[in-house]
Amino acid sequence: MVKAEVITIGDEILFGQITDTNTQWISTELTNIGIRTIRKSSVGDDEKAILEILAEAESRADVILITGGLGPTKDDITKKTLCTYFDTELSINEEALAFITAFFEKRGRPMTELNRLQAAVPNNCTYIANRWGTAPGMWFERNGKVFISMPGVPFEMKNLMTHTLLPKLQAFFETPIIYHKMLRTIGIGESFLAERIADWEDNLPPHIKLAYLPNFGQVRLRLTATGTDLEQLKKETQAEVEKVLPLIDVNVFGYDNDEIETVVGRILKERGQTLSTAESCTGGYTSHLITKVSGSSAYFVGGIISYSNEIKIAELGVKPSTLAEFGAVSEQTVVEMAEGVRQRLNSTYGIAASGIAGPDGGTDEKPVGTIWIASAGPDGTVTQKLQLGKFREQNIQYTSVYLLNLLRKQLLGL
Amino acid sequence: MVKAEVITIGDEILFGQITDTNTQWISTELTNIGIRTIRKSSVGDDEKAILEILAEAESRADVILITGGLGPTKDDITKKTLCTYFDTELSINEEALAFITAFFEKRGRPMTELNRLQAAVPNNCTYIANRWGTAPGMWFERNGKVFISMPGVPFEMKNLMTHTLLPKLQAFFETPIIYHKMLRTIGIGESFLAERIADWEDNLPPHIKLAYLPNFGQVRLRLTATGTDLEQLKKETQAEVEKVLPLIDVNVFGYDNDEIETVVGRILKERGQTLSTAESCTGGYTSHLITKVSGSSAYFVGGIISYSNEIKIAELGVKPSTLAEFGAVSEQTVVEMAEGVRQRLNSTYGIAASGIAGPDGGTDEKPVGTIWIASAGPDGTVTQKLQLGKFREQNIQYTSVYLLNLLRKQLLGL
Repeated sequence: MVKAEVITIGDEILFGQITDTNTQWISTELTNIGIRTIRKSSVGDDEKAILEILAEAESRADVILITGGLGPTKDDITKKTLCTYFDTELSINEEALAFITAFFEKRGRPMTELNRLQAAVPNNCTYIANRWGTAPGMWFERNGKVFISMPGVPFEMKNLMTHTLLPKLQAFFETPIIYHKMLRTIGIGESFLAERIADWEDNLPPHIKLAYLPNFGQVRLRLTATGTDLEQLKKETQAEVEKVLPLIDVNVFGYDNDEIETVVGRILKERGQTLSTAESCTGGYTSHLITKVSGSSAYFVGGIISYSNEIKIAELGVKPSTLAEFGAVSEQTVVEMAEGVRQRLNSTYGIAASGIAGPDGGTDEKPVGTIWIASAGPDGTVTQKLQLGKFREQNIQYTSVYLLNLLRKQLLGL
Repeated sequence: MVKAEVITIGDEILFGQITDTNTQWISTELTNIGIRTIRKSSVGDDEKAILEILAEAESRADVILITGGLGPTKDDITKKTLCTYFDTELSINEEALAFITAFFEKRGRPMTELNRLQAAVPNNCTYIANRWGTAPGMWFERNGKVFISMPGVPFEMKNLMTHTLLPKLQAFFETPIIYHKMLRTIGIGESFLAERIADWEDNLPPHIKLAYLPNFGQVRLRLTATGTDLEQLKKETQAEVEKVLPLIDVNVFGYDNDEIETVVGRILKERGQTLSTAESCTGGYTSHLITKVSGSSAYFVGGIISYSNEIKIAELGVKPSTLAEFGAVSEQTVVEMAEGVRQRLNSTYGIAASGIAGPDGGTDEKPVGTIWIASAGPDGTVTQKLQLGKFREQNIQYTSVYLLNLLRKQLLGL
């Protein structure tokens, strides 16, 4: 099996000033073309460290993918270091220079000397045109191994990979077939899930592996089948899915790249129904999850973020007496919020959340993490109380996911 | 200087099924106590690979921090592998067992055999109590080097580090003083920034280093000073900040961990003023940025997400004639949205965004990425047109950040 190492270069990653999302995306894409990532590494903008990791990676892997260190500024040294590693020199690539010049003309921005130098690449590499930015992609070959250098800007890297480098890698290497099938579960902990499906897991055929991937109240079950015949692998994996489903079916909300927001969106769209939101403690995050899905305007009409009680009353029609008697964080209030937004924005369903996200604002009776959620529809309103932790952002994300799952269960009559 | 390597263990990271946010957080914290991360690595749940990276890291670094692979399920082998590496055996730690038992009793959940086994640790390690989950922390020492193993669940790892491990590391190692100062800029590209401050950068003293960290329309300038006297380093760094500020002051919105949402929040709170939002294309993301800040309820009253024109009219008072004449994505509409929400929700300021987030819905006249933003206040309304790219989530994030910056400039009269 073709083995890959992914290397990110930059002090900003080592020092922790930015989140590296590139390597996750890269290894996912590599997996999908049957290339196995065996290691990921990050080193700083330091020539010695870069030369060392390149040599190590070359000794272990067949393809080495490098991101970062290609910026126009002084602290980016990847190109220079690649020249040292491959014992060659930089020279201006005319195609790159023409593109960069056009890039700046198109945007009506002056081109600096630093930008011009971005058109320089090592003499022994194949220049990979970057139509999304000013840093070039580079492809090196040595002793049947491939080295790829890409800019660290995620959307530039992703476009280079998708349009040029992944097809080029598929053409270069002969790879076995790997087939992944993911079951997305929600509302059951990893160890309870494991206990419930232990017998099934123990009886999986040796070429099908199972992994548990827990994240925010969800656990993804990933089946990975390896072989030579894709159709056969799909059949065998599907057979295993059908064996395990009866054990966990209420918890399975989707497959593969399904997210809870895409699943509920699909159902609403199919039914020609609409959705609105009334958010207090989640402060817009639930609406963001819904609307980051392209095409969500087909079923999402809008929402009201009612951070203050005045707005709960004026915009959602929550009764002052309800707030006085039961408080903003109560089943009664969240029901009136959900039904209020559904009526006010004239949608088929209305969902609402009200709670104490923390870290402050808790009481003995209602500690931080006490959250009520509700989903109102044509056949009535369902509610759920969540007792979460002390971490504000985590509470916001959990609540939005559980709220969308509450809607999913109402939509499906579960 | 004490050198650290951070190792994450788990197929889920290698295969790209989850984002690793732990290593970023860990290396930031290490930097702050004067420990330099020299490398980050990820390997799979594979004994050979884990043994190999442990030996490599031990040869390079003084402290090796390991996360992941401590879950209750069959695919987690870190503890077993640490026993092999240190040539010892697992045995149940009574303190750990007592805690885990109490953990499940408290939650009224049955405890499984798998959970019981989580109380087992290698005989040669110091058990580090994890009060936030069921996987133990472990501290190993060999030849003056330290190995730390922690669960991969971020909030468990962060609590173990903050409450126990970082203080323990500071006590164990003698470290030089490192002082970081970050300038947060917005609205100027990396290479233009670099050109503008090139002379200043060239004249920085050798013990103060500069790095450019671009991200979503922002560029962070990080000054890193190394020495022995913290107060001296702070003085010298501040002197450099005061030299560079006049060159870029409109672009500097804050320092260190300031985010645009915390900066505008601080100003509003100091002035006792309030804010509301009217979001179309950003779909709640701007409100989420505002409300993920603890204490934002002091100045954020709420918002209206007007995805449909009906809601722009009914809830925000946008004139049907405006929508008919200029369209939803226009300066006129976004002005009426901002002024409408300000009036409707009775806040000092109202901010609004309307645009085509993409990937679909563009026209020749208004291509994908055409976005209008507005900020309405007591002294009038300011607007800005953005021409962004084709990537939906990126457009949403850029727009929210630029919208908050438009508000910042209005608040400060810039």
